[in-house]
This record gives sequence, C-alpha cells and structure tokens, in this order.
Amino acid sequence: MPTDQLSATFAALADPTRRAILARLSSRECSVTELAEPFDMSLPAVSKHLRVLERAGLIARGRHAQWRPCRIKAAPLKEVAEWASHYRALWEGRLDRLDTYLQELQHKEKNHDRRPRRK
Amino acid sequence: MPTDQLSATFAALADPTRRAILARLSSRECSVTELAEPFDMSLPAVSKHLRVLERAGLIARGRHAQWRPCRIKAAPLKEVAEWASHYRALWEGRLDRLDTYLQELQHKEKNHDRRPRRK
Repeated sequence: MPTDQLSATFAALADPTRRAILARLSSRECSVTELAEPFDMSLPAVSKHLRVLERAGLIARGRHAQWRPCRIKAAPLKEVAEWASHYRALWEGRLDRLDTYLQELQHKEKNHDRRPRRK
Repeated sequence: MPTDQLSATFAALADPTRRAILARLSSRECSVTELAEPFDMSLPAVSKHLRVLERAGLIARGRHAQWRPCRIKAAPLKEVAEWASHYRALWEGRLDRLDTYLQELQHKEKNHDRRPRRK
C-alpha cells in the first residue's frame, strides 16, 4: 500500500470507473445509489471504489444515517496537476523550467536528507 | 492490471521511487547502474521499477547490448496533466469550465455508447 499522499492519489486514479465516479461528482454530491446507476454495477462494487477514493482523500462522505452523500475533494487533484506540470517543459521542449524543478528537488534533498525508501 | 493507457500511467506513478527515477531521467538519459546509485537500491530492484515504467510508456530503453540507456517519454505525462486540468475549476472555484468538460464527456458517451467495464 502506498504511504505518501501522492502515491495514494495515483493508485486511486488508476481505474477508469473511479475516474468516472469523480467526473460525476464534480458537478454535484451523489448518493451511492445514484453513483451505481449509470455504471450498471452492484452497490457493493461501487462502495468498494468509494472506499478507495475516500482513503485517498479524493472524496468525502456525509454522516447522515440513511443517505451518505459523496462529494469530490479538490486538493489531491491539484497536487496531481502540480506534479505533472513540472514535466510540461518535456512536451513543450522548454528545458529551462525543468532545470529549475530539478534544482529545487536537489535542494530539498540536501535540506531534509531524505532518501527514497529501500524496496 | 489496468488496460487503458491512463490507468497504466497512474498505476506506474503510484510509487515515490518510480517518480524519483522519472525526475532523474528528465534531465538526461541514464543507465540502470546510474539510476540505482542515488537510491541505494539493488540493480534488480531498479530494473523492476524500470519495467513498470516501460510497460506504461513512461520510459524507453536503448537497444545497445551492454548499455541500455533509459530515457523519459513525455506523452503519458502530458495526458496526466490534461486529465487533471479538467478539475482545475474545482480548486479555483470556477465551475463553468467543469460544466463544459462534463458536457464533452456526456457527448462522447452518447456517440460511442461506451460504458465503464463491470467490476
């Protein structure tokens, strides 16, 4: 299981049904029943996807006893957009920006003495 | 295993070591030995991560017999950035853009009669 936020977000997004659920929730809150309907899926199957999205912080669920509406949370999606934007220079052919990003990464590593976990 | 490109990309990115390898490769091509060094990892462990990245199309490897340099490929990263950008309105509070995206999605679904896979 991924332990950092960005890894948890990417893992949760690695499924077309979960991404479709997020697209649906981006316009309004929905109940599990409403979410299940267009996907022709069982409620337990949808609930399983929702648990993954909730654990990753991509959705939050209301605390009503009978109707627990799901709503999308933007913060992890913003993190994904910011992460990907560092590579924009690659497909736009502007390598100066990427150099700045790499220098920032090296600076962080030096300051925090963080090394990626052994695997 | 994810079958669509975006799911494969997200799955490959759901690991901090693989993201660190991509950051390293964004400045220049590297051999497996060079990639292994800063991570204090074994060559087989790095090779395993490289295979995941290669299968997802995030890197390509040279065909030299002894030195198979790895290079980053930008296309899947661009796809991630484009996907995430659809949700920009959520954290910027501009919901008009998101409406346009949802209308596009519904239009696509209608035209192609595509439904998410059953799970």
